[in-house]
Amino acid sequence: MLSREELLRGTRRLASRANPKIREWASLHDRRIRKELGQTLAEGARLAGEALSAPGGGRFRPMALLLSDSGAERPEAERLFSLARQSGIDCYSLSDDCQARISSLKNSDGLALVLSAGPEPADFARLLALAGARWLIAAGVQDPGNAGALARTALAAGFSGCLFLEGVDPLSPKFLRGGMGASFRLPCLSRNIREFLAAWEDVRGRAELVQASANPAGGDYRSEKYPTPLLILLGGERGLPRELAGLPARTVHIPLAGGVESLNLAVAAGIVLFEANRRHAGDFPAADAVSCRKSGVAPRGILREEPPARTVSARGEVNSPPASGVNSGTGGLRNS
Amino acid sequence: MLSREELLRGTRRLASRANPKIREWASLHDRRIRKELGQTLAEGARLAGEALSAPGGGRFRPMALLLSDSGAERPEAERLFSLARQSGIDCYSLSDDCQARISSLKNSDGLALVLSAGPEPADFARLLALAGARWLIAAGVQDPGNAGALARTALAAGFSGCLFLEGVDPLSPKFLRGGMGASFRLPCLSRNIREFLAAWEDVRGRAELVQASANPAGGDYRSEKYPTPLLILLGGERGLPRELAGLPARTVHIPLAGGVESLNLAVAAGIVLFEANRRHAGDFPAADAVSCRKSGVAPRGILREEPPARTVSARGEVNSPPASGVNSGTGGLRNS
Repeated sequence: MLSREELLRGTRRLASRANPKIREWASLHDRRIRKELGQTLAEGARLAGEALSAPGGGRFRPMALLLSDSGAERPEAERLFSLARQSGIDCYSLSDDCQARISSLKNSDGLALVLSAGPEPADFARLLALAGARWLIAAGVQDPGNAGALARTALAAGFSGCLFLEGVDPLSPKFLRGGMGASFRLPCLSRNIREFLAAWEDVRGRAELVQASANPAGGDYRSEKYPTPLLILLGGERGLPRELAGLPARTVHIPLAGGVESLNLAVAAGIVLFEANRRHAGDFPAADAVSCRKSGVAPRGILREEPPARTVSARGEVNSPPASGVNSGTGGLRNS
Repeated sequence: MLSREELLRGTRRLASRANPKIREWASLHDRRIRKELGQTLAEGARLAGEALSAPGGGRFRPMALLLSDSGAERPEAERLFSLARQSGIDCYSLSDDCQARISSLKNSDGLALVLSAGPEPADFARLLALAGARWLIAAGVQDPGNAGALARTALAAGFSGCLFLEGVDPLSPKFLRGGMGASFRLPCLSRNIREFLAAWEDVRGRAELVQASANPAGGDYRSEKYPTPLLILLGGERGLPRELAGLPARTVHIPLAGGVESLNLAVAAGIVLFEANRRHAGDFPAADAVSCRKSGVAPRGILREEPPARTVSARGEVNSPPASGVNSGTGGLRNS
């Protein structure tokens, strides 16, 4: 255990709320600014740790570790510092007042990571139709917590990525938190509906489109087939946006008892995605994460913690690993 | 469409925040007061409507409809008034200021229902071991939104009830909202761990206890059996309370891909409960809601909207309906 002085040696001190850095980081809660700067925030020790240690980190690259005076007292601080220094990024020591200016959390633990976000791949249509690909297409999801839970669920179900059509911003700090680090392992893209419809024209005939729907006229999710490449289309809190109603999708539904009209969005996604997963090439498919690594950025982090994942660069090169071990996960049920 | 005057005819007007009724209703956000008074609040037009029209209403009985000046302008107000008058309950017209005193919601729609809550059945151990019963036992769940989502999921999966061990209060207005009305159709009980362990001594050998766990040493949820009477035990946000670790439960886990350590609580419950449901007497079991109706209270509401449910009174009488139609539900995926 390092002393506080040893811990903070070499950090830069920021103690004024008017400091331009503080103002810049605080502005990352604004979607427009995130897009302009190509940056976002991972708030909290756990999420920051995930970002620093996830293999590859997806499109995200750590830029700066921020540690408030209270945060520096936390047991997690030392490990984060050590990971940050291995990554060669700047560390900042912030007054609690400055930290409060930056944080969106009610009970912040005083630890945060500034991330640069690489551009989304331009040719996402190609990713959707890759052999073996399974994507969740979530249209009009508004709540970043719901969207984050969808990403985490898709990753756990062995899906290749999440595409959000309108609604949430996958760069939002609240989305990153809701996903508990899923964004660092799973490509989470966003497009508007028009762009998706154009891509669909390109992909149709090569990928299967299945809409998870409230309509009991659709097939029972338990008896349907889920061949790959598979796109599972899910409407948001207010259902499927009208512009997507005309798509030639096969629909599946979950029969509900007790007069229940609908399930929580992530619960419904969990049931359908895990059903698709169990049907996919036997009951225990290998992890199938496709990470859209920023082109030109060298792999980072502790790859040996993870089975090798097939990666897709922003330029679209596919790097298939040798046949990897099955990652059947730890089957956790604890967190919410 | 009634005029505002016609709508409010016969209501009682409350315009002072100091009015004892206003103070009493505002205090229903306090767990201790709810228990003392045996009352709670259903906030919002949708939930109030569910409470007024759910068959039986479980242990809840409407006491008073509260309508703020802004709420009276909403299109839902007329239907609620009409339902409230059919139920013969009092209607109150509140100033917006009084309504704000009562509501816990950021964006209240100005409509709320005061409910009396009947006592929980004393002999709940008996309910757990009823033939065909399937209960979700959720231990240490803290967040009322999570708990509500669990109740809604259990109802949709054809379960007989939810038993919360410590953690949330099933009378909490936030829990009622999180469940989107599930509480009015599904018994949601709460006990402390000691009481449950005592009940378990009574039930063991007659019911199957299955713990949904993060431990991959447990059986794969897809290959396990789920015979009834079935108790599925689930830990809360921080895992299973230590006092329950020694129970002789069979454990099941959900294999997770992508290095994900755990799923959102309601997502995990959804996957396991729907799996148990599909194994139960074929793929399309009838709704199996057991409603703990307050003894002596006549059925209420629109029974024809629902398949007849087997009901259990607080005294423990079981009223089995004639074999009912299959309620395969509407398979909704919309709300969160």
